Amino acid sequence: MAAATNLPKQMDTIKRQQLLAQLNWRYATKQFDPTRKISPEDWAALESALILSPSSWGLQPWRFIVITDPKMREKLFPATWNQRQILDCSHYVVFTVNTKMTEEHIDKHITRTAEVRGGTPEALKRYRDVMMGDVVTGARGPISQEWAARQAYLALGNFMTSAALMGIDTCPMEGFEPDEYDKILDLAAQGFASVVCCAAGYRALDDKHAAQKKVRFPHEQVIHIV
Amino acid sequence: MAAATNLPKQMDTIKRQQLLAQLNWRYATKQFDPTRKISPEDWAALESALILSPSSWGLQPWRFIVITDPKMREKLFPATWNQRQILDCSHYVVFTVNTKMTEEHIDKHITRTAEVRGGTPEALKRYRDVMMGDVVTGARGPISQEWAARQAYLALGNFMTSAALMGIDTCPMEGFEPDEYDKILDLAAQGFASVVCCAAGYRALDDKHAAQKKVRFPHEQVIHIV
Repeated sequence: MAAATNLPKQMDTIKRQQLLAQLNWRYATKQFDPTRKISPEDWAALESALILSPSSWGLQPWRFIVITDPKMREKLFPATWNQRQILDCSHYVVFTVNTKMTEEHIDKHITRTAEVRGGTPEALKRYRDVMMGDVVTGARGPISQEWAARQAYLALGNFMTSAALMGIDTCPMEGFEPDEYDKILDLAAQGFASVVCCAAGYRALDDKHAAQKKVRFPHEQVIHIV
Repeated sequence: MAAATNLPKQMDTIKRQQLLAQLNWRYATKQFDPTRKISPEDWAALESALILSPSSWGLQPWRFIVITDPKMREKLFPATWNQRQILDCSHYVVFTVNTKMTEEHIDKHITRTAEVRGGTPEALKRYRDVMMGDVVTGARGPISQEWAARQAYLALGNFMTSAALMGIDTCPMEGFEPDEYDKILDLAAQGFASVVCCAAGYRALDDKHAAQKKVRFPHEQVIHIV
């Protein structure tokens, strides 16, 4: 059994017990402690985690909008079904996606790839053509906003797990009015649409939901081995 | 600033540097080392991570099918656009979702909630009615398979990040024929549909993709602070 040179040093990986302890500790936080803020250093790491999220073809069909302005939070509050998480949490992220995949976006990605890895966009022409065929000009293109929304949920999963491992609470939020958000944040004109939100911060001491047992269907109903 | 009683002990959380090191180490593994298998203990932890994935209302509209049988992998290979990850990886997961949300599913969830937390399903009637209204009988119900697909992508994000933190490689795969998979795995009759797959295992020493720089759009294009 060969040792892979690219494997991280063992000290960098985490233990199984640690992973499961934090995933069990996590819950959809209903009451945040409004006096506790995520430190700038921890938040910077979570922004990096968001940016590092995987996406189909690496196309990153998204923009993460972090709402820090209390006035904007008040404005979004009614469109958030009056849920207080948006007011009380430390950082509130609106996951927005490109409403459609365009040749312009593909070219932006190709240019960036050449910039980061060296070489010219022209040398990536074949790669560009395959991507174009898959998501813009081909049978399933121009690919829908729904495809981008799925990618955003993947980023949300990465964000929530990253936060949980750092001991930071989150609440994923589908309970909001996307059309209202898009108007208030002026997203349509920029080619974006909101698909899901996530509040992050620290649970209030008296959030009774924190103590509730996690409900999951039995293992054999969820995992099938073939 | 109050200390929250439910915060994990500091020893359980991970450091920012560790999170980002592992998220940077991760890449979509194109070539797996077919001789290296994930240990049963590590795999059990990843199955638990899948089960612990958050979902809207906690409804877990999914089933994770782990393909271990080499004959089944050969059978799925052509429907996987002949991508070798399905043959060479250690564990191959098909993320499947409920094709629609039903009263039966809601009741299953309510029964399970009473079982885990104590009390009777009857005591949860109000909670049941709100859920029913939101995803089955209300304006947006019966909620679509697409909603469930988004949840599955959230689980995929959680799975990939959990694996990366444990030093386990993954490759998320949209390049497959869902209809073919559904036939081969006989999913439709059970009310499920495949939406995305993920290969897991260890990178081959000669996978040239491992050394490529990660391409991400600049920070200011991806994160907006409002």
